Amino acid sequence: MIVVLAGGVGAARFLEGLVQVAPPETIAAIVNTGDDMVFHGLHVSPDIDIVMYTLAGIVDPSQGWGIRDDTTHALSMLATLGADPWFKLGDRDLAVHIRRTELLRAGWTLSQVTDSFRRALHVGIRLLPMSDEPVATEISTPVGWLHFQQYLVQRRARDEALGVRFVGIEQARPAPGVLEALHTAEVIVIAPSNPVVSIGTILAVPGVRDAIVASSAPVVAVSPIIAGAPVKGPAAPLMRAVGLEVSVRGVAACYQGLIDVLVIDRADADLSSDIRASGIDVAVTDTLMRGPAEKRRLAEATLDAARTAKRHRSY
Amino acid sequence: MIVVLAGGVGAARFLEGLVQVAPPETIAAIVNTGDDMVFHGLHVSPDIDIVMYTLAGIVDPSQGWGIRDDTTHALSMLATLGADPWFKLGDRDLAVHIRRTELLRAGWTLSQVTDSFRRALHVGIRLLPMSDEPVATEISTPVGWLHFQQYLVQRRARDEALGVRFVGIEQARPAPGVLEALHTAEVIVIAPSNPVVSIGTILAVPGVRDAIVASSAPVVAVSPIIAGAPVKGPAAPLMRAVGLEVSVRGVAACYQGLIDVLVIDRADADLSSDIRASGIDVAVTDTLMRGPAEKRRLAEATLDAARTAKRHRSY
Repeated sequence: MIVVLAGGVGAARFLEGLVQVAPPETIAAIVNTGDDMVFHGLHVSPDIDIVMYTLAGIVDPSQGWGIRDDTTHALSMLATLGADPWFKLGDRDLAVHIRRTELLRAGWTLSQVTDSFRRALHVGIRLLPMSDEPVATEISTPVGWLHFQQYLVQRRARDEALGVRFVGIEQARPAPGVLEALHTAEVIVIAPSNPVVSIGTILAVPGVRDAIVASSAPVVAVSPIIAGAPVKGPAAPLMRAVGLEVSVRGVAACYQGLIDVLVIDRADADLSSDIRASGIDVAVTDTLMRGPAEKRRLAEATLDAARTAKRHRSY
Repeated sequence: MIVVLAGGVGAARFLEGLVQVAPPETIAAIVNTGDDMVFHGLHVSPDIDIVMYTLAGIVDPSQGWGIRDDTTHALSMLATLGADPWFKLGDRDLAVHIRRTELLRAGWTLSQVTDSFRRALHVGIRLLPMSDEPVATEISTPVGWLHFQQYLVQRRARDEALGVRFVGIEQARPAPGVLEALHTAEVIVIAPSNPVVSIGTILAVPGVRDAIVASSAPVVAVSPIIAGAPVKGPAAPLMRAVGLEVSVRGVAACYQGLIDVLVIDRADADLSSDIRASGIDVAVTDTLMRGPAEKRRLAEATLDAARTAKRHRSY
């Protein structure tokens, strides 16, 4: 079993590579749900959907989220009726949220809904929400605490990020299958996702960090930072908000004690010795994923790094 | 004030004529909600929406319901995810149900939601749901009691209709404004809608029939039956199910004691004397509404009939 901790777009692209080099049924992704939010009464799980749409081959490739060639007729009508549709939801995409909401109200868990949907969309890997309990990632800003989606999408990350919290995290339990997957994993991969608000949220679910540390499997992370900047998303201000340098050094610091090896881009090769000095092995490769071949090569390099890594975690 | 008891397509077309001959702000429609049903967790009010879309000028003219040029991308995805989308809901249409459901869950009444939507869509007449409480019209068939939409849409009226009931009607109160509108009406019109399951449901709301009988306004009904058949919909089997002849005589029998005058089509002129013998005046005109001019003329003829009608109701 290969178990991947996953946020949104970066993780989805990494998983596209991984399914080229390992049978999908041997892969499980534990996906961040701290970005989940209710829009127009509908439960939206952005990271689960990004990963699911990407692996189903229906994601909008230009955005990295949403469904390809989707229309937004419902959203236009919602605006006409007085709703504030600041979170873009396409018509096909809305169906996912409508059905999810209906099933959750009928008593299904988010895990059950997610498993049903990924099977319906012919996604071969297991998709495990990090928790079936609601967790809300919030960003502290000069205007107050904002839900992550409000901070990022509604206000376009224009507020200074001062801190991060995960509301509900103390009550959240790992979803069924999460701890089991970590216990039986042969490789644990931290996908190139935001270390603070994607991976950080998963790690904050009680029991998850301990399960990773206790695992006998090698743990490898792929840096979402290349040459001092994230490929996509608001990692820079959020890393700074929690005192991390926006660099592969900052990523290594974030995962210290948790991972054995960090996969970094050639552009950051000169920082390898710093990371090694902090007690984490380094694998240097091309980490920017533009096409299928690059995704495949990164997945291969990541598995190779895991297999050859010495154990560096303390436990 | 002109108060119109309204079902779906027939009433909507009649109201299109009425707004040509009377200021919209002097018109209130009391609309059947017995056909309301929850689809995919969303509250759908078919008759309210048909009337609202029609008067907003956005109805699909070929169907008489739904929104013109609407797409069904969400419905296709719902089917992919395992839902059974037997009730056709377009993408723009879905937005109405999404927003309605959201507002109802937030504590709005159906009346408040409906008033907000009709204003947003620039509908000048008041749209009053018959009740804010849920009422479900059900049809007795050899396979059991079916919700009206299951009977009509899911099973295409293929089951023999044996009877009709309105579940929840005893607990339903007229929505705010309904009794007030009837008390202050100068004319009360029963639109050419299904007398059993559209108008019959409204009349069954406790207090509505009494308010009409007690009103000093003339009460005029427009027959939905022309030459022994309804223009649209399942009136024939449902009239038979409750023992009514499928004819203007059957319509008159259904409304006996309630209306002063019945507007019938020229095709049924030979039945006028039968109806007059039952104590209801008759006005004969062209009642088939194809274009704007025909709708306008029917509205004029209906108001004329009301103004010249003798009082025939007993109270």
